[in-house]
Amino acid sequence: MLARQLLLGAGSSLRRFSSASRGAVVASTMQAIRAGEEDVRQRLAQINEEVQKLLALKEQLKQLTVDDDGSGETAAAAPAPSKPAAASEPGNRNLSLKTPKGTRDYGPEAMALRQRVLDQVVRVFRRHGAETIDTPVFELKEVLTGKYGEDSKLIYDLKDQGGEILALRYDLTVPFARYVGMGNVFNIKRYHIAKVYRRDNPQITRGRYREFYQCDFDIAGTYDPMLPDAECVKVVCEILAEVGVGDFVVKLNHRKLLDGIFEACGVPADKFRTACSSVDKLDKTPWEEVRREMVEEKGLSEEAVGRIGQFVTLHGGTELIERLAADETLRGIKVAMEGLEDMRLLLQYCEIFQVADRVSFDLSLARGLDYYTGVIYEAVLLGGGGAGGGSADEEITVGSVAGGGRYDNLVGMFNPKRKQVPCVGVSIGVERLFSILEARAGGKTRTNETEVYVASAHKGLHLKRLEILNKLWSAGLKAEHSYKLNPKLLAQLQHCEEYQIPYAVILGDGELSRGVVKLREIATRKEEEVALDTFIEELRRRLLSAA
Amino acid sequence: MLARQLLLGAGSSLRRFSSASRGAVVASTMQAIRAGEEDVRQRLAQINEEVQKLLALKEQLKQLTVDDDGSGETAAAAPAPSKPAAASEPGNRNLSLKTPKGTRDYGPEAMALRQRVLDQVVRVFRRHGAETIDTPVFELKEVLTGKYGEDSKLIYDLKDQGGEILALRYDLTVPFARYVGMGNVFNIKRYHIAKVYRRDNPQITRGRYREFYQCDFDIAGTYDPMLPDAECVKVVCEILAEVGVGDFVVKLNHRKLLDGIFEACGVPADKFRTACSSVDKLDKTPWEEVRREMVEEKGLSEEAVGRIGQFVTLHGGTELIERLAADETLRGIKVAMEGLEDMRLLLQYCEIFQVADRVSFDLSLARGLDYYTGVIYEAVLLGGGGAGGGSADEEITVGSVAGGGRYDNLVGMFNPKRKQVPCVGVSIGVERLFSILEARAGGKTRTNETEVYVASAHKGLHLKRLEILNKLWSAGLKAEHSYKLNPKLLAQLQHCEEYQIPYAVILGDGELSRGVVKLREIATRKEEEVALDTFIEELRRRLLSAA
Repeated sequence: MLARQLLLGAGSSLRRFSSASRGAVVASTMQAIRAGEEDVRQRLAQINEEVQKLLALKEQLKQLTVDDDGSGETAAAAPAPSKPAAASEPGNRNLSLKTPKGTRDYGPEAMALRQRVLDQVVRVFRRHGAETIDTPVFELKEVLTGKYGEDSKLIYDLKDQGGEILALRYDLTVPFARYVGMGNVFNIKRYHIAKVYRRDNPQITRGRYREFYQCDFDIAGTYDPMLPDAECVKVVCEILAEVGVGDFVVKLNHRKLLDGIFEACGVPADKFRTACSSVDKLDKTPWEEVRREMVEEKGLSEEAVGRIGQFVTLHGGTELIERLAADETLRGIKVAMEGLEDMRLLLQYCEIFQVADRVSFDLSLARGLDYYTGVIYEAVLLGGGGAGGGSADEEITVGSVAGGGRYDNLVGMFNPKRKQVPCVGVSIGVERLFSILEARAGGKTRTNETEVYVASAHKGLHLKRLEILNKLWSAGLKAEHSYKLNPKLLAQLQHCEEYQIPYAVILGDGELSRGVVKLREIATRKEEEVALDTFIEELRRRLLSAA
Repeated sequence: MLARQLLLGAGSSLRRFSSASRGAVVASTMQAIRAGEEDVRQRLAQINEEVQKLLALKEQLKQLTVDDDGSGETAAAAPAPSKPAAASEPGNRNLSLKTPKGTRDYGPEAMALRQRVLDQVVRVFRRHGAETIDTPVFELKEVLTGKYGEDSKLIYDLKDQGGEILALRYDLTVPFARYVGMGNVFNIKRYHIAKVYRRDNPQITRGRYREFYQCDFDIAGTYDPMLPDAECVKVVCEILAEVGVGDFVVKLNHRKLLDGIFEACGVPADKFRTACSSVDKLDKTPWEEVRREMVEEKGLSEEAVGRIGQFVTLHGGTELIERLAADETLRGIKVAMEGLEDMRLLLQYCEIFQVADRVSFDLSLARGLDYYTGVIYEAVLLGGGGAGGGSADEEITVGSVAGGGRYDNLVGMFNPKRKQVPCVGVSIGVERLFSILEARAGGKTRTNETEVYVASAHKGLHLKRLEILNKLWSAGLKAEHSYKLNPKLLAQLQHCEEYQIPYAVILGDGELSRGVVKLREIATRKEEEVALDTFIEELRRRLLSAA
């Protein structure tokens, strides 16, 4: 059905119908056909969409059933799960036809979207003057040891095959600190986009994999307070606005202030970090539960925890800084006042950078990692997912999409003379951004950039096609053709529609003998004869005016 | 010295000198100073270059001494080599400050060059309509097993931490075949740029690492003979020409023809592959030695080897095809004739693609990997390294920079129903290209893209700087400033020169009170006052006209 309709759209057949005598009849018939075509195309698109969804579900199901070897912490002797192959030929072992647990392939559509988002992110990094570096995918195991607390058990170790003991990188921050410390670098503003590896329990349905991209921007160097820190916040705001994932807020806090609060509330110094990790759960857990954990599991006194609760539930702006600066219990505590001074500066700079309405000073923000020493931040999308989906006060967060902070004591661990280089940075949660945009992308994303398809109207034209192609490539145009000697015109035009290639050059003996080719605009199906001598210029002109 | 001279170049000081009355004296003095500056700058550049070379040598030495744990095949219990740290603080373990053996970090300069080259390569792939995909860095070990022959021992295994047995990918071809087979893909033209891992003995001095980029372009699908194959050759030629690494030749041969020759020479069928791997050494080893290996190690008869020798030393063009097609011994052998028929077509298509002068039908080309089933090719740079550095006949090759071929039987191993999808592809040896271009790049490569630096002429202007920066970023310009509250003007201008930032906006109270800023062109050191209202437009105009 569709095939015949498409063929009617093709030039040579069309011309036969459109003789002047039958004009009106033909016109109305064509209109009806076009409407029918459009209808069929829409329905096909819907079906295609449904099929894609089903395939995705099937993939998830497969991961959940075949791959689920529990927590991944089972005995070393557990055999790799293996699906029986559908056909077993002699001499051909039955391979498990899957990617490793918690990983996936990315096909052309997923990659097209990812590259588009990463390009946007890099553009922002570049706008702020960042360079880029790269480090190996694995490190000496000892470089990673002791940097990730409890999560160290999630590190992928390489097999000891004689030589060094290696492990896959767990994040990009520790390799960066090693790079800076080992190389005696004193200042650098760099971004690094690369995959990291965590033997976590994958949650495929929530888009959490064991292999995933991190996308980090860091500023290392001895500078004046909050100038690099504020720029990191600005970078996050620019990226989230440009990628277009809806309304968001960047929560800000300060490790020194948190420490000061713990001190003021009577928490012993050796329990600051564990108290911190309890507070960190406040984004997902109600205070009552966090309170119980601090008292019952972490052994803090009821009174101390009660006082902590009065602080960590606060959030606001400059007025909150003033209130805390005047607070009786905090006033005598030096680190608290230093933290507040930093926060005051940071908010002032955010004001100048016109992101004050995007940030929220939030005392419940703690961040999991141990190595932060100053400002910490985390960007979360607000409920509704769209613009104007709720004020900061009634925020229903749909998850963190960026996070970071200052870490002034990490580089020294990797410097031969233990020299410190203060750092501040942010990691963009691009995998979250990919998921959100992927779910939203209803229309088909283009997966190649072909500008023109060289088609032949009938048999025996493949040499001519190669010649035309060569001319197009030499002229720098992006061009393709069928790798079949005598492809059907219909199949060639369908390929153009499927891949959204804007133009086709259709070759035919009749036209070639008159020194012309047919130039077809795929979207409108309009065709026009153009001289062989000038069709490249004509094409270039059209492509430029469309861009 | 240099500092004072540079300061003289800075705007505000300059104006004091250039009063009309002392014009001539000042002009000649400035000229002398400029010449002196230039001299100092050149000498600094030389020193810097020397230091870079020394550092590189030191790095190599370190790799050769500390890391050299023999072939990497030593006993599993060997401890990781560990350098004593220069200072050992209590509570801080002594880390080995290095990247794993055979790997390295890539700093901003190396990365800038790599990105430039990869962009050029991708542009060619895209011009030919390729999409891109990505696969995990590790695969189930069994996916890789039995694909690489003897080299399988170079595969990096992951530690068995419970769950699946995994290994790092060794190339991109097997993961691609798995992707196509497992996903029931019937046709795809894709490129894949990613790192692969081989526990080889690294040759750091020759730029051979254990972690390195591969850059593959493959066409999968059931098509007519040589149409996709010829396009792969064309892609290689375009890339090498555009990257600009000098003169090259693409050697072509055919596995079926080689098999036919072996058959014709009386080699038993079960020794075709081992004979093939001997022939493969002909690019580095003289025939006499290869001959001896075939007779003494592989057990082929003197007579058979003698006859092989008469074939595999041949190379040429269409005339060679005709000669072989007429050859008495080959004429009766079906596979040989099929191979020749393919070669005839391939050369014809290469002619149309205007790369006939770049290719050489070379019977000594065999390629190491087992999975090739048809055309094979390998691009080598010709001696001299420059254009016109010798004809194909007197070629002194400086090594392979691309290679590939047809592999029609690999995908089926990964398809549940063992369905084959014929493939042909090429892998660009980008690491070789990087090395060649790196060695050649005398001048400093820009590592960031900053268009304008916001500088302050004196103290107390940091808030104003932030405001101007924010305006520039909002306008989409790439802008930076110093993260110090009160940086010295000299230091700011030196930063611009070092990073080759084209413009600086210099703020000063005097100028700001008059509603202007100074716009300085870094290369010429020319300064001009521009109104605060219009300096962004002025900047954009200048950047556009320079582009």
